Amino acid sequence: MVVKKENNDWAAIWREGQSIFIIDQTRLPFHFEIVELRTYIATANAIRDMLLRGAGTIGVAAACAMAQVFSEYSDKKDINKAKAYIEAARPTAQNLFYATNRVYDAAIGADDPAAAAFRTADNILHEDETHSRLMGELGAELVEDGFGILTHCNAGKLAIQGYGSALAPIYVAQEQKKNIFVYADETRPRLQGAQLTAWELNQAGIPHAIIADNAAGYYMQHGKINIVFVGADRIACNGDVANKIGTYEKAVLAKENNIPFYVVAPCSTIDFACKFGENIPIEERTAAEVKNIGRSLVANPESDALNPAFDVTPARYISGIITEKGIVLPENVYTLA
Amino acid sequence: MVVKKENNDWAAIWREGQSIFIIDQTRLPFHFEIVELRTYIATANAIRDMLLRGAGTIGVAAACAMAQVFSEYSDKKDINKAKAYIEAARPTAQNLFYATNRVYDAAIGADDPAAAAFRTADNILHEDETHSRLMGELGAELVEDGFGILTHCNAGKLAIQGYGSALAPIYVAQEQKKNIFVYADETRPRLQGAQLTAWELNQAGIPHAIIADNAAGYYMQHGKINIVFVGADRIACNGDVANKIGTYEKAVLAKENNIPFYVVAPCSTIDFACKFGENIPIEERTAAEVKNIGRSLVANPESDALNPAFDVTPARYISGIITEKGIVLPENVYTLA
Repeated sequence: MVVKKENNDWAAIWREGQSIFIIDQTRLPFHFEIVELRTYIATANAIRDMLLRGAGTIGVAAACAMAQVFSEYSDKKDINKAKAYIEAARPTAQNLFYATNRVYDAAIGADDPAAAAFRTADNILHEDETHSRLMGELGAELVEDGFGILTHCNAGKLAIQGYGSALAPIYVAQEQKKNIFVYADETRPRLQGAQLTAWELNQAGIPHAIIADNAAGYYMQHGKINIVFVGADRIACNGDVANKIGTYEKAVLAKENNIPFYVVAPCSTIDFACKFGENIPIEERTAAEVKNIGRSLVANPESDALNPAFDVTPARYISGIITEKGIVLPENVYTLA
Repeated sequence: MVVKKENNDWAAIWREGQSIFIIDQTRLPFHFEIVELRTYIATANAIRDMLLRGAGTIGVAAACAMAQVFSEYSDKKDINKAKAYIEAARPTAQNLFYATNRVYDAAIGADDPAAAAFRTADNILHEDETHSRLMGELGAELVEDGFGILTHCNAGKLAIQGYGSALAPIYVAQEQKKNIFVYADETRPRLQGAQLTAWELNQAGIPHAIIADNAAGYYMQHGKINIVFVGADRIACNGDVANKIGTYEKAVLAKENNIPFYVVAPCSTIDFACKFGENIPIEERTAAEVKNIGRSLVANPESDALNPAFDVTPARYISGIITEKGIVLPENVYTLA
């Protein structure tokens, strides 16, 4: 379905008073459902059950949940208990803790804690929008008219408010009326490219096609891809980048074919405590994600499957890292501290 | 399910008298069904409907169908009409024409045409078995105890009688009691790795795991893969190799990680009329294969998908081509004419 195609003004998350509204991302691309979250419990559970995903969107939701806590409780013990509940929703999401702590610190001593909390949550959302816009404008300068662009996974408006990260240069290039074509890797095993990126691009009317992850190299080899934009889950101080499994493959192929490969991520993604990419732990997820698609078993039942969720792309394959503070060479990412 | 696990003596195709028996590959890995094909029409339709697949298996089936024609008809006009019907079943399969012509030429003037035809069909099958065994023994010399092996798509016993091509060194290494572990790319969009290669490896009791195509680079980077074996659809005289989409990506990644990358294919795969890989036409298949898995739509409905079925791996990424005549450097493949 196409939602509000005229102005493409959908958002992954917003608030009205004490209610938080989100797009249920588990239902995309087949159903577009807005869910209203009236209490902190509802918001925390939506984070836990992955109705929303993406570093930025999780951070904003956690901030909003924390603000809801301040409108629901005044006793500090209750507030701390609720904060712990929110933080348990996705314990590996770095942005979640940043958001709950920032809202908590702003509200805990304030005259009107709930108002201060919601104001802080709004600020976090608006900062994401601003950073996304800046990354988009910087990245779009690299996009020439007629470019074919490859992206992997989903790092768009569903993941970070505004324009997303990897998709931000694409949205801005589209605004600039540049003639572009996006190749969206389907991104097995969870298909975020085929389902979420393709949905976003279709909403925005940006010409695109879904491809099997196996076909990206083919289109690079045939000169169809002029630049690659990907997001990042975590960036080490030496410029190594952890991102969705398969990112490393595309980076190696881009280098081999002399295609610029850019990581687009806000500075909050840089882990200044992490020196090298090999220090980043890689989550090994369930074999069922590989063996099943949706609820259907698609693989030999008796075979095992291995399912690393992320990989680390060494800095030497990355042309640059596009942040809200500018484009830096990966080896200089530590200067953004 | 595990079929005859004790001796692993299943075959993709065999004959008893005038009947041809095949495993219905469209039902694997979830159902193991033997289909008896009593007439040339039944055999040709099984080829057309892809109940069997793989260059070798198609060739043997076409030879058997042609032999069935000689047992069903004696009038030359009827025989030629039937031959044309078989050849229309998979018009791009090179082996099919080779097989029908060879059986036809052997039978057409013979005293007992049907007997001569079946004898020739049997010879084609036995030659495939012999070639497969030779490729397996040559390839297994490259496999050391403790190796991790990557393969892509299915080039096993289901595709070529005996031991297959890419899987032949793996079967032989297993016979030699080498301790190996196979990483089977699932091979989107059609999942031949997850469904057929994984099924074969499980039948043989060879330790293995299915991985998303995106994860192959990760395991190379982490030193888990010591050698790569893939099959080939067509080999050009300069050593460029057309094979299932994604093969090129794995070849580039193998080179980048200093991992030997071998193509295993009988000499019949070499197209001596084709000088360069770029002359090999690449079939563009339906978007539905990417957007659907089985009967389920898994991608954004409004988005288009692009689906090249094969890619061409330039010779410079290939460590060697393993044929029944020996292992050659790709640039020397023309010497096998």
